[in-house]
Amino acid sequence: MSTSLRNHRIRLAARPHGEPVAEDFTHDVVEVPAPGPGEVLLRTRYLSLDPYVRGRMNDARSYAAPMEIGDVMVGGTVSEVVESAAEGFSPGDTVLSYGGWQEFSVEPAERLRRLDPSAAPVTTALGVLGMPGFTAYAGLLAIGKPQPGETVAVAAATGPVGSAVGQIARIHGARAVGIAGGEAKVARMEELGFDTALDHRAPDLTGRLAAAAPDGIDVYFENVGGAVWDAVLPQLNEFARVPVCGLAAHYNATSLPEGPDRSGQLLGAVLSRSLTLRGFIQREFVPTMFEGFLRDMTGWLASGRVQHTEDITEGLQRAPEAFVGMLRGRNLGKAIVQVS
Amino acid sequence: MSTSLRNHRIRLAARPHGEPVAEDFTHDVVEVPAPGPGEVLLRTRYLSLDPYVRGRMNDARSYAAPMEIGDVMVGGTVSEVVESAAEGFSPGDTVLSYGGWQEFSVEPAERLRRLDPSAAPVTTALGVLGMPGFTAYAGLLAIGKPQPGETVAVAAATGPVGSAVGQIARIHGARAVGIAGGEAKVARMEELGFDTALDHRAPDLTGRLAAAAPDGIDVYFENVGGAVWDAVLPQLNEFARVPVCGLAAHYNATSLPEGPDRSGQLLGAVLSRSLTLRGFIQREFVPTMFEGFLRDMTGWLASGRVQHTEDITEGLQRAPEAFVGMLRGRNLGKAIVQVS
Repeated sequence: MSTSLRNHRIRLAARPHGEPVAEDFTHDVVEVPAPGPGEVLLRTRYLSLDPYVRGRMNDARSYAAPMEIGDVMVGGTVSEVVESAAEGFSPGDTVLSYGGWQEFSVEPAERLRRLDPSAAPVTTALGVLGMPGFTAYAGLLAIGKPQPGETVAVAAATGPVGSAVGQIARIHGARAVGIAGGEAKVARMEELGFDTALDHRAPDLTGRLAAAAPDGIDVYFENVGGAVWDAVLPQLNEFARVPVCGLAAHYNATSLPEGPDRSGQLLGAVLSRSLTLRGFIQREFVPTMFEGFLRDMTGWLASGRVQHTEDITEGLQRAPEAFVGMLRGRNLGKAIVQVS
Repeated sequence: MSTSLRNHRIRLAARPHGEPVAEDFTHDVVEVPAPGPGEVLLRTRYLSLDPYVRGRMNDARSYAAPMEIGDVMVGGTVSEVVESAAEGFSPGDTVLSYGGWQEFSVEPAERLRRLDPSAAPVTTALGVLGMPGFTAYAGLLAIGKPQPGETVAVAAATGPVGSAVGQIARIHGARAVGIAGGEAKVARMEELGFDTALDHRAPDLTGRLAAAAPDGIDVYFENVGGAVWDAVLPQLNEFARVPVCGLAAHYNATSLPEGPDRSGQLLGAVLSRSLTLRGFIQREFVPTMFEGFLRDMTGWLASGRVQHTEDITEGLQRAPEAFVGMLRGRNLGKAIVQVS
């Protein structure tokens, strides 16, 4: 059975070779099916754009199965209930869902989380009060374990994960060194209260980082990789912790970089300085930490101890260009598409 | 003041370029000084040969300061008290010390640990009941955290660290996969009770490792690096733990290997499989774990649950060749030089 509604969708047309291009996406319009028992029909209001989605466009082993060609592009959404065949949901309800890059989705009720629009702006459920904020909270506190007086460094520090990392580090008594690209982002890091804000596009990041962290770096929250990692590694102190959350600089890579092979040298640094490198996906920590995160972060937002920024693009048809822009670091704050 | 004794010493003559050669060592004979107040004059009975000493011959940042040219080569020793100017030590006492590559040493009493020759053969204080055994115990249990039914892999598995890792893993209910070079070592691994014994010199280690660990590897105790690490990495399960204890395959390297640069790929594996890489030096765990180690390991040796092997070379003058042989993996068991 279908409804009278028409659904504009954006699907994966081809696996990108390097940076995604327009031809890697395909648009179509289909009829919207009616929800089956236990399901809810949702209208997408906001779509979250996140770097991990680039990884799922590849046909490679990762922490999540890759998308198949033809699949609707995946993504978290804030949606409104249009029609409900599930107990507990009524038309007009606002929910956090995983509807993907389309105007409508039909989802089982158990995958939805109800949002209270009077408690916080609903878009925060995609950012500072959602997966990115929780990623920062869990990775920093469970793996990074910053201690008062220690130095925490983070790249992409104006993004939704990095900006939360720096602010939570300061709440826990650590010094926060933020790294991001360009003057606007440096200014934003300063507004966010980072102790030091470094532009990775300016020359000699290694030297400036050494000057910014004269006692070395105790926690490096890794969400970028590449040249920033190369600059950070020599500054890591004995017993430093590196939560490895993302490697945005590598996501569009089509081949391994030229040699020499520095992988053994990396293991040597891990050995000689008793470093901890720990990869993680936030869902590992949901059972033990999500409730505390919501409580803490809601309080920090209310008291102004944590600020957040959103970068909202209007219109689903612009999602591909906004996505590529985010991978290039053109957004300032959490990248969101306003769909309806 | 000096004694009438003459001390044969082996000192660092030059920093090795790659594998150490005879010219990197110099021999001399000097008078033995009398011990000052609080000091003890020791005659070296047994000298421990350990891979980490190769690192200290380089002029490079590591977990311990490098030796200087002209320094007596460093090493743990089992020694006998010849003359004591310290309370609590008398001629004839046997002690664990850090006398280095020489026949006599004068050391402050507080650096010595008294050994009871009736409790265990004194050479075990250099191996299974000493630093190598404790390295295995602390790294495996504090970082590797093997669970019953999990698979633990270790290379150099007939050496004093690796053989203890495999046997402790089995005591904790895990499957032990041992890797070492040559048929004699495979036979020895089988005697030690490893569930699977692999010869890294035979072809297709990657394939044989995959067959030996059909459910993947949960803990890899890293003390080798190089080609064994390359074979292990693809087999590591989600949430696998890698205590990084040594990188023997790299110690003689004079330059980085040819490309491509796989360091980013390594970080990618850490991320996509939520791996933990953790470097460590055993001394980190001495305050919290050494007492439990001595109790556990003494019990396991007495009950026969842990076996150990020693590879003893006679004569201090043969220490350099025995050391190079150990770096090449020619020893079977803990490498020790009997000095007197």
